Amino acid sequence: MTTERARRPGPTVRTRVHEVTPSGERAREDRLATEEPLEIRLAWPGAPARRVWVTMRTPGHDFELAAGWLVHEGLASGASIHGVAYCTDVTLEPEEEFNVVTVTLSAPPLRDPGHRHVGQSSGSSACGVCGKDSVTEALAAPAGSRWTGALPTTDVVRRLPDLVRERQSVFDRTGGVHAAALATAGGELLAIREDVGRHNAVDKVTGARVLAGSSPAEACLVVSGRAGFELVQKAIAAGVGSLVAVGAPTSLSVRLAQESGLVLYGFTRPDRCVRYV
Amino acid sequence: MTTERARRPGPTVRTRVHEVTPSGERAREDRLATEEPLEIRLAWPGAPARRVWVTMRTPGHDFELAAGWLVHEGLASGASIHGVAYCTDVTLEPEEEFNVVTVTLSAPPLRDPGHRHVGQSSGSSACGVCGKDSVTEALAAPAGSRWTGALPTTDVVRRLPDLVRERQSVFDRTGGVHAAALATAGGELLAIREDVGRHNAVDKVTGARVLAGSSPAEACLVVSGRAGFELVQKAIAAGVGSLVAVGAPTSLSVRLAQESGLVLYGFTRPDRCVRYV
Repeated sequence: MTTERARRPGPTVRTRVHEVTPSGERAREDRLATEEPLEIRLAWPGAPARRVWVTMRTPGHDFELAAGWLVHEGLASGASIHGVAYCTDVTLEPEEEFNVVTVTLSAPPLRDPGHRHVGQSSGSSACGVCGKDSVTEALAAPAGSRWTGALPTTDVVRRLPDLVRERQSVFDRTGGVHAAALATAGGELLAIREDVGRHNAVDKVTGARVLAGSSPAEACLVVSGRAGFELVQKAIAAGVGSLVAVGAPTSLSVRLAQESGLVLYGFTRPDRCVRYV
Repeated sequence: MTTERARRPGPTVRTRVHEVTPSGERAREDRLATEEPLEIRLAWPGAPARRVWVTMRTPGHDFELAAGWLVHEGLASGASIHGVAYCTDVTLEPEEEFNVVTVTLSAPPLRDPGHRHVGQSSGSSACGVCGKDSVTEALAAPAGSRWTGALPTTDVVRRLPDLVRERQSVFDRTGGVHAAALATAGGELLAIREDVGRHNAVDKVTGARVLAGSSPAEACLVVSGRAGFELVQKAIAAGVGSLVAVGAPTSLSVRLAQESGLVLYGFTRPDRCVRYV
């Protein structure tokens, strides 16, 4: 039967492209970052699996993505995640086989997954607002314990993006993905993940820690792009002490970081960084 | 009463930051791109206004954002948009006053807005997948008439990102926003809009054309970032002939562009561009 199963998608795919310069056109092989939808279903004792989210993501570390997203959304603690598996629903098309995961909790979710569970999911590759009912709900600060450990010095902070960049294997091949990493105060990288969606990369990092039985709370979360509101929400929900971004923050991300005591850096490079909080 | 009204938020806000270099730290003023939630409500004859989406966006051109989003989602044609206004709901908090818009259609929407209308909105600043029910629905190709006019030559294509960049006023001040622009085959920019969400910038450009009574279908849509699946979906829904991105496309965006006959360029700069379809 295995020959009938869909091939598990990898993080990159080959494609034929035409490179055009002022001197002419040349066909060559190139690699693209894979982008495929992932549907996350949630089950707990006495409750059948229900769809809670659909996101566009780069395949790989799908279980971590699902686990980290649930933690960031305040739906589950790491300890309550009993198992994660690709869905074996017989109604799925072969190409959907590795695009649907079910997370089984050992207890009911920490909050009502709300309307999102009645066959009405929502999501995107950059989503902390998805499924929120209104402006007020979208702006709610996530619950998260505050980091009380050591924080990286600015010397360490300025080095972090290059350390992450050196380990971005999918970016090397495609130029088209974001990275997120968890680092200690001393600058040691504990986990790094890549994805076409920068929010997915953060979910994967938290999920990697949680599924390994560790806490996602650490001194520093590093992101390869900008620090929008949703990324700050995720950092606070994970309980990290500082967020180091290569790009710019926004008005709302600075406000939320201030209110939550999250140390926020932007425009971070070896010779310079900007601290907003 | 006007003194009690909320101040309309601008596209940037001032903030105090600490710039850190190896030689020390220095406090200075900086500007951040404003990020605020926008709730879109939809009304038509015989139907009271209902919430259909919430997105994080940079304030400014909010009516265009709402109109363009509806067109890209296949919910309305430009001609059916009767009016757009900030909501005057008395239950709104003052700070929400410029964060809720109502679009009134002259006829019912072209398709059922579905579950998103029962006080259950969803959205993000990078959303073409939001509110989709499943993997299958997320992958649906949008309806859109195909562009049959002239297309830009590669000489024009390679020049477009710099032309857009020259007119990015919010980026100049913040370094934190994306841009989208509509261009003719000859390289004339017809509309350019900026936003913290690259998908919002595309919605605003289409909305700008539609609210001016023009068609959003043109030779070329230019985006300052990567060309993910959702941006290709919007380009096809708007009926443009080509999509020119400064960054990389993904596997799924190339596949959808191929299926839909959209010419797709990535990694576009003055001396080089890559054509994928």
